[in-house]
Amino acid sequence: MINVAIVGASGYTGLELIKILINHPKFNITYIANSTGNTTVSTLHPSLDGVIDMPVEKVDVGQLAKVADIAFLALPHKTSMSFAKELIALNIKVVDLSADYRLKLETYEEYYCLHEDKENLKHSVYGLPEFYEDQIKNARLVANPGCYPTATLLALLPFVPYLDSKSNIFIDAKSGLSGAGKKLSDMTTFVNVSENMFAYNPFKHRHSPEINEKVLELTDIDANINFVPSLIPVTRGMLVSIFVTLEDICDAKQVLKEFYKDDEFVRVKETPVNIKDTSGTNFCDIFVEQNGNALFISSSIDNLLRGASSQAVVNANLMCGFEANCGISKIAYVP
Amino acid sequence: MINVAIVGASGYTGLELIKILINHPKFNITYIANSTGNTTVSTLHPSLDGVIDMPVEKVDVGQLAKVADIAFLALPHKTSMSFAKELIALNIKVVDLSADYRLKLETYEEYYCLHEDKENLKHSVYGLPEFYEDQIKNARLVANPGCYPTATLLALLPFVPYLDSKSNIFIDAKSGLSGAGKKLSDMTTFVNVSENMFAYNPFKHRHSPEINEKVLELTDIDANINFVPSLIPVTRGMLVSIFVTLEDICDAKQVLKEFYKDDEFVRVKETPVNIKDTSGTNFCDIFVEQNGNALFISSSIDNLLRGASSQAVVNANLMCGFEANCGISKIAYVP
Amino acid sequence: MINVAIVGASGYTGLELIKILINHPKFNITYIANSTGNTTVSTLHPSLDGVIDMPVEKVDVGQLAKVADIAFLALPHKTSMSFAKELIALNIKVVDLSADYRLKLETYEEYYCLHEDKENLKHSVYGLPEFYEDQIKNARLVANPGCYPTATLLALLPFVPYLDSKSNIFIDAKSGLSGAGKKLSDMTTFVNVSENMFAYNPFKHRHSPEINEKVLELTDIDANINFVPSLIPVTRGMLVSIFVTLEDICDAKQVLKEFYKDDEFVRVKETPVNIKDTSGTNFCDIFVEQNGNALFISSSIDNLLRGASSQAVVNANLMCGFEANCGISKIAYVP
Amino acid sequence: MINVAIVGASGYTGLELIKILINHPKFNITYIANSTGNTTVSTLHPSLDGVIDMPVEKVDVGQLAKVADIAFLALPHKTSMSFAKELIALNIKVVDLSADYRLKLETYEEYYCLHEDKENLKHSVYGLPEFYEDQIKNARLVANPGCYPTATLLALLPFVPYLDSKSNIFIDAKSGLSGAGKKLSDMTTFVNVSENMFAYNPFKHRHSPEINEKVLELTDIDANINFVPSLIPVTRGMLVSIFVTLEDICDAKQVLKEFYKDDEFVRVKETPVNIKDTSGTNFCDIFVEQNGNALFISSSIDNLLRGASSQAVVNANLMCGFEANCGISKIAYVP
Repeated sequence: MINVAIVGASGYTGLELIKILINHPKFNITYIANSTGNTTVSTLHPSLDGVIDMPVEKVDVGQLAKVADIAFLALPHKTSMSFAKELIALNIKVVDLSADYRLKLETYEEYYCLHEDKENLKHSVYGLPEFYEDQIKNARLVANPGCYPTATLLALLPFVPYLDSKSNIFIDAKSGLSGAGKKLSDMTTFVNVSENMFAYNPFKHRHSPEINEKVLELTDIDANINFVPSLIPVTRGMLVSIFVTLEDICDAKQVLKEFYKDDEFVRVKETPVNIKDTSGTNFCDIFVEQNGNALFISSSIDNLLRGASSQAVVNANLMCGFEANCGISKIAYVP
Repeated sequence: MINVAIVGASGYTGLELIKILINHPKFNITYIANSTGNTTVSTLHPSLDGVIDMPVEKVDVGQLAKVADIAFLALPHKTSMSFAKELIALNIKVVDLSADYRLKLETYEEYYCLHEDKENLKHSVYGLPEFYEDQIKNARLVANPGCYPTATLLALLPFVPYLDSKSNIFIDAKSGLSGAGKKLSDMTTFVNVSENMFAYNPFKHRHSPEINEKVLELTDIDANINFVPSLIPVTRGMLVSIFVTLEDICDAKQVLKEFYKDDEFVRVKETPVNIKDTSGTNFCDIFVEQNGNALFISSSIDNLLRGASSQAVVNANLMCGFEANCGISKIAYVP
Repeated sequence: MINVAIVGASGYTGLELIKILINHPKFNITYIANSTGNTTVSTLHPSLDGVIDMPVEKVDVGQLAKVADIAFLALPHKTSMSFAKELIALNIKVVDLSADYRLKLETYEEYYCLHEDKENLKHSVYGLPEFYEDQIKNARLVANPGCYPTATLLALLPFVPYLDSKSNIFIDAKSGLSGAGKKLSDMTTFVNVSENMFAYNPFKHRHSPEINEKVLELTDIDANINFVPSLIPVTRGMLVSIFVTLEDICDAKQVLKEFYKDDEFVRVKETPVNIKDTSGTNFCDIFVEQNGNALFISSSIDNLLRGASSQAVVNANLMCGFEANCGISKIAYVP
Repeated sequence: MINVAIVGASGYTGLELIKILINHPKFNITYIANSTGNTTVSTLHPSLDGVIDMPVEKVDVGQLAKVADIAFLALPHKTSMSFAKELIALNIKVVDLSADYRLKLETYEEYYCLHEDKENLKHSVYGLPEFYEDQIKNARLVANPGCYPTATLLALLPFVPYLDSKSNIFIDAKSGLSGAGKKLSDMTTFVNVSENMFAYNPFKHRHSPEINEKVLELTDIDANINFVPSLIPVTRGMLVSIFVTLEDICDAKQVLKEFYKDDEFVRVKETPVNIKDTSGTNFCDIFVEQNGNALFISSSIDNLLRGASSQAVVNANLMCGFEANCGISKIAYVP
């Protein structure tokens, strides 16, 4: 058993980390913290009453380092890097669920803020296991991907080599409301969301440069990414539609099947994917349909699991020499 | 007052027609029918108990022609043309909400079935008032547009002249469940739809050729339409995302504003449109955002009103010499 | 035409008042205000863009009194009475949608706060038209009932004379989220409400003494009211279940039908009532079922209309000598 | 490992049984069947694609008996007893999720149909572990309780001895739509259910005699049960409100805590219970509030788990000598 810490226990991804790690066969939660401390897990998350009764501490890096070997940071960007820096210095492995170590320095500083841990940024590994498994196994610091980039990259990357390089890539991404976090806002009330749907920040979301950068890094192609996110009246889940134009006609379904034939957490589907079949799991379901040189690629993930916490635990599994699927759920919440 | 008949009173669009016409200042409902008859409006639609107490007859064209001057047909395709043919012969004006008179003969027969009223098909007018107002005013038979084509054409048409003609046009259209009608299906149960979303018939929906044909007819451009519809957990409403590539850079927001400056039922919005702001109205809200040569155009309509019944009444208003907005709601159901 | 003012334009009930009064045949909106002013109706409520373009002023009683003859106050309690007092002094009729004039002084001060307009409180009339029509017609100040009391009293009052006076009356009332207003709270986010349901303030809600007091006033019976409200994942609407024990067996369905035989806004139903059939209307639907000496009485209203704004306009109609139903919708939003 | 069979794999409770048993540490699924066979689990339930790839057979009792020691029957009533009878004869233990063995013969035949396995009915044990644990441990045939009775009995039974025996017991029970099963109906479409709520079969639901009979059996008190079920726009979950009148005033919160102090799957809560905190688990959460001699008792369960499949596995655990909680989830799906 390896001892693990969770920093940032109050939000949805912190809750999901706790839920996964409670039953993990090889990880043992020894430390849970948030920004205020002085509470318990079941006070923060009443559904865990009678399940786990650990205290939630005010985060203290020295304390953490005494009792854990690896830490999950489920914190806002900027806050995260200050803790990560200290933890790495104390020889604690880190899986960071924030954006702080996902991007190149210049990109990060353009879209977020000044970076205060440039040294570790150089060595961080992007935690998308289908593409960075070997690096993750040797990483001390893994930057867990954003939810939109996870669903988008897994669907898009197999096709990048076949695309007409001058054409636009259009991404119409729909997220459930848990993706917006717990912060109160007029936008996320039940009255505003139920029986409604709307785009937000079209072409301007900060997950767009994350997608761009990884496509370039992995394919050497500077793609014309046009990313539009929307909110749908769903709590948990994400459905991404990608529209691209092929340079050479390929058998898209066959390309996809071949690409993921050895990946247990990507399912290539014969019929359009839906949100419920992946909700509660680490699966990414992908479907593709062709119309002449046009492709519609659609992917579905659970934004809190494959888009955050279960992917983080897969990364931790790999970093600790365990099987990728150790303690990871494949059983959807459906119905 | 002009006397009107509604044929096809059982479905959602029939209900909406009744709701609009009850309070219409210039139309007087004199005849309501469905395929079985022998019932009343408030038996079919209990919400109208205490509001309207008319009998619903088994449809009889002769009977109808005695008491009404114009008929709304809210019927399945194929059924609709048999009645339309007889009604036109009896000199009754017809607004047909089915697909029977929307398409050219060859297109219709490719996507639907053999056409049994070719004569009237030649003279039917497509009931999209922003583009066919003059013809509608003189029509005896108006083919009311489909919901997806209404929302798509209104958003797309202003930009067609500016597009790169070789690039694909991608349409990601999301419909509420009332668009699927009342027929029972595993796909439309609450358990399957709530907290879910999925595409259906990607690139193969029958509203796709309707869009194609009208774009060609109105712009002389044979566009590369790629249409993907989805269902979202919403009862009423439709949100369409259109992704296109410009040939020449234009000021898209300005193009849109200029195009619709005289149209009272199209609202050009500065922020992304949503479903609730048009639900209950005949408005089509449109938003556009630009990213280099890429455009995201988004439109919202009430699929049962602007996408069917209120647009039908606007058409009837024009056919009868009334103002387009006579008896048409602009007040959304929100919240 | 009578000129009307709306004070409190920002909330849901303010919006509903505007939506009703825009189309009212005998009222003319001349003044709209909220606490800050300096905005417009369509800025506050974007769905009304292109429909009404009035300014929203910072509330000024003197200004209001120059341009309107009757004012609707859609304000929080306490705020409301300060304006009502001044308006009455200026000879403006008032329909107050807050709790400020609904209760006897002692009850009010026990459940809310000190009352600062005791004089007008003495003369205020409770605006439940089925029971206070004559007084409303002569009132200068009408206290519009709460949503829970409206649905509860209309269902309960016909049966009070038949009840076993020693038995408890149990009320299990479910409200849609618009009833909680626009104030942000963890309780009212989409994530917390969707796929969820829960009671709140059981036996302690401030609408409970309102029900008690009116039952006593109208029947001289001091009933044992036990009121439990819940939130359901619905935006608009309210469903109330009442459980009572009869002293003498009566034909409950007949009692109900007879009681409301002349009331156009109460529908006695033969099958269990639902939320959608009243949503968008001023109707209260009521159903009763009997099991020995036990009764289940269920009522449905639109919490924002019959439970607030349309009932307020009915009251204003009566105060101004118009028909109760003038400009009041009977057509539900369904589907 | 004990080999288990699931008969009735197509419905929601069949799916939940599969989901639980896939990961159960002591049960091994060796046989899955439905009425038609000739399919696979992942064809019936696409979310299990890549998770389990067993065939689904046309049910054959002889075949089943060769490969399994215990069978779960997730079948409609009447169908269930024909298989149970044969299985018991072949010495297979049975957990029956239908109503066939829950009631006394006369009650069953009054509310359901003629009973065709009277012999086994005599020996069946009601599978509510908190009350029948010892009998379950020795049972060959367990009748798994209905969802409404589970939530109702767990909340009501602690208080029955304290109630005024002449007063009515009122139960206002709300169920999510998965409780209505997969059969298509106008009542269960998304359009009818979303933004809606309604009672059905008030005082006449077949779970009412089940509650009656068990209260009498366990307390010797013939209670005046008045049971009204409703559907709420929720997929999974159940919230039951019980209203009763005390004979002697007791400290209700203390009574409840004391009653369940040793039961790991009942949580007595200090604040009103909600659906999400039990969804995905075998927990029953209970809350009680007092108002003079009136009590409001509220309980929440997952209708498909504690109300069906996870309770069935708890029963199987007990029948096989395992710990009650073996393989049973306590981690809710929330958010």
